[in-house]
Amino acid sequence: MLIATLPGDGIGPEVTEQAVRVLKAVTGDLLTFEQGLVGGAAYKAAGHPLPEATLDLARRSDAILFGAVGDPDCDALERHLRPEQAILGLRKALGLFANLRPAKLFPELADASALRPEVAASIDLVIVRETNGDVYFGEKGHRKTADGLREGYDVMSYNEAEVARIARVGFETARARRGKLCSIDKANVLETSQLWRDVVIELSAEYPDIELSHMYVDNAAMQLVRNPGQFDVIVTGNLFGDILSDQASMCAGSIGMLPSATLNSSNQGLYEPIHGSAPDIAGQGKANPLATILSSAMMLRYSLGKPDEADRIEAAVAKALAGGARSPDLGGTMTTAQMGDAVLAAL
Amino acid sequence: MLIATLPGDGIGPEVTEQAVRVLKAVTGDLLTFEQGLVGGAAYKAAGHPLPEATLDLARRSDAILFGAVGDPDCDALERHLRPEQAILGLRKALGLFANLRPAKLFPELADASALRPEVAASIDLVIVRETNGDVYFGEKGHRKTADGLREGYDVMSYNEAEVARIARVGFETARARRGKLCSIDKANVLETSQLWRDVVIELSAEYPDIELSHMYVDNAAMQLVRNPGQFDVIVTGNLFGDILSDQASMCAGSIGMLPSATLNSSNQGLYEPIHGSAPDIAGQGKANPLATILSSAMMLRYSLGKPDEADRIEAAVAKALAGGARSPDLGGTMTTAQMGDAVLAAL
Ligand SMILES: CC(C)[C@H](C(=O)O)[C@@H](O)C(=O)O
Ligand SMILES: CC(C)[C@H](C(=O)O)[C@@H](O)C(=O)O
Repeated sequence: MLIATLPGDGIGPEVTEQAVRVLKAVTGDLLTFEQGLVGGAAYKAAGHPLPEATLDLARRSDAILFGAVGDPDCDALERHLRPEQAILGLRKALGLFANLRPAKLFPELADASALRPEVAASIDLVIVRETNGDVYFGEKGHRKTADGLREGYDVMSYNEAEVARIARVGFETARARRGKLCSIDKANVLETSQLWRDVVIELSAEYPDIELSHMYVDNAAMQLVRNPGQFDVIVTGNLFGDILSDQASMCAGSIGMLPSATLNSSNQGLYEPIHGSAPDIAGQGKANPLATILSSAMMLRYSLGKPDEADRIEAAVAKALAGGARSPDLGGTMTTAQMGDAVLAAL
Repeated sequence: MLIATLPGDGIGPEVTEQAVRVLKAVTGDLLTFEQGLVGGAAYKAAGHPLPEATLDLARRSDAILFGAVGDPDCDALERHLRPEQAILGLRKALGLFANLRPAKLFPELADASALRPEVAASIDLVIVRETNGDVYFGEKGHRKTADGLREGYDVMSYNEAEVARIARVGFETARARRGKLCSIDKANVLETSQLWRDVVIELSAEYPDIELSHMYVDNAAMQLVRNPGQFDVIVTGNLFGDILSDQASMCAGSIGMLPSATLNSSNQGLYEPIHGSAPDIAGQGKANPLATILSSAMMLRYSLGKPDEADRIEAAVAKALAGGARSPDLGGTMTTAQMGDAVLAAL
């Protein structure tokens, strides 16, 4: 099976390297790794954040291991050349529409959350975020108003097929967990949300075993702080999911710990840590590779059909933490490679 | 001076009543109060959540004291008849474009926040949210895609005049505080945000004394949990402001404590607690009136030119809390009226 490794910018290469070591250790020579350029690194080497060769590699692969993109050198570039466009481009080109982000506190890290320990400990949720539609991919641009003023605009929309496709992932994810699905929208203001809510309700007829609820996004942002333990699975659109999933991650503790998967309808997936490229600590061996290692466990489970190997990696991470493995973000002094060593030793 | 009191639904009437008592106590007979129907209560009595008579009263008033709207009986109504439309309608009709929400923890209530006490104690920020534009008020509706699928859409936009107007409020608010302004957008994806950021940067030339920064909304949602103390004044659009201001409020502790003001360009304002109508506890004397009482202090300061009276109310609230006044949301047993009594006694 072919894994496209796209290390990208900043700390991306360091953390990806450790995940590859771990994947090799648990899968022997089942996997072939082929590396591609992405993000600011790709722009600098090849003039585009998502070169054709990378897109081709991604298409051929069974799964993509993605580091991070984002490079301050590229901030002044036109939008379509900025590193972030690589991730949007990959999602769209490969139809990666379902972003899954589990947020759960490792008990060993209870002190790392800004929330009270008892509140943080209650978090065990998955956010299912749509990543192929919404205001991200609608018509957008600059125009002049009737008075000649500059105006920026972006069209938000969802159609019923797009909503049903992601809602189904939400219902199925809930079915495999505690059976509760909360759909988040802003139906009191947005027609896009009203359609979203209507379609989710229609689909719920097929899932009588799932307890469905609806919440406005402003209330959800409150509830994720006040009582995050009330959530099992959250399903939401691209924009609200962007905001809420980052918020939920932070509630669960260090952002250096949390993995993500983005799947298409054939379970091909892109796996990446939720943290960014962190240019300030790049190349210093300070980055925590656990989020990327945990992303590779998700890869084994969702794209490669190897749930036992996924479990082994997750258990090894827990064991390494229990044994005291701590990178600087967790209050320790271990380097990126030493964190990788600790996981390998625990395997 | 004429105050329009619009108590609205649920706990709105109870909390508004206490704020009126406090306003009368500090202003003698300076103020005339005239009551109007709004929200579900107005729909039931007059067939519309924002009747003409209410709009007329609001227009004639110097300031509006608003309780809350939202009534489960009205959930199945068409959108334009739902209680929430009253607040959107008032904002638009009166040009109330600048929503100010201070978030600060009363030291007496350090235990009420879900955040660690030391994190919660660091919060002292104001969110300046635009409330006349964005995806809230753009063209919206349902249509069919080329394949005949139902689709909902909403157009997000801002023009340079709208952005400059609210950004100026942000800069001025920062100037009267610690001199730091953080503008929040999603300029890596949205053209509306790119225009927003461009205009904020242009305007910053007039405010060389203000330290301006920019943050993406997903990162802001994280930072409000991780390290809310880093913020002084936040300025953002209508949709992001809706989400982030509710999140920030919850970080600062009980939602029963936080006031808000929404101003137009002649400093006419609508003053309301940030909590909703809470139909589950309506009519039971369980609601905390302090958010509405603190909103009336903002009214004195921003619309009525009475800063000393505003200070007196805020000091009385702090004194009442220090003296042990606690409604159920604060872990106590005092009724809505007893909380009002405690503030009056402290005056
Ligand atoms: C980099 C950016 C375009 C992206 C997004 O907004 O989707 C990121 O924030 C994410 O969540 O993956
Ligand atoms: C009731 C609703 C339309 C409103 C909004 O979204 O603006 C509310 O959430 C608020 O923040 O005042």
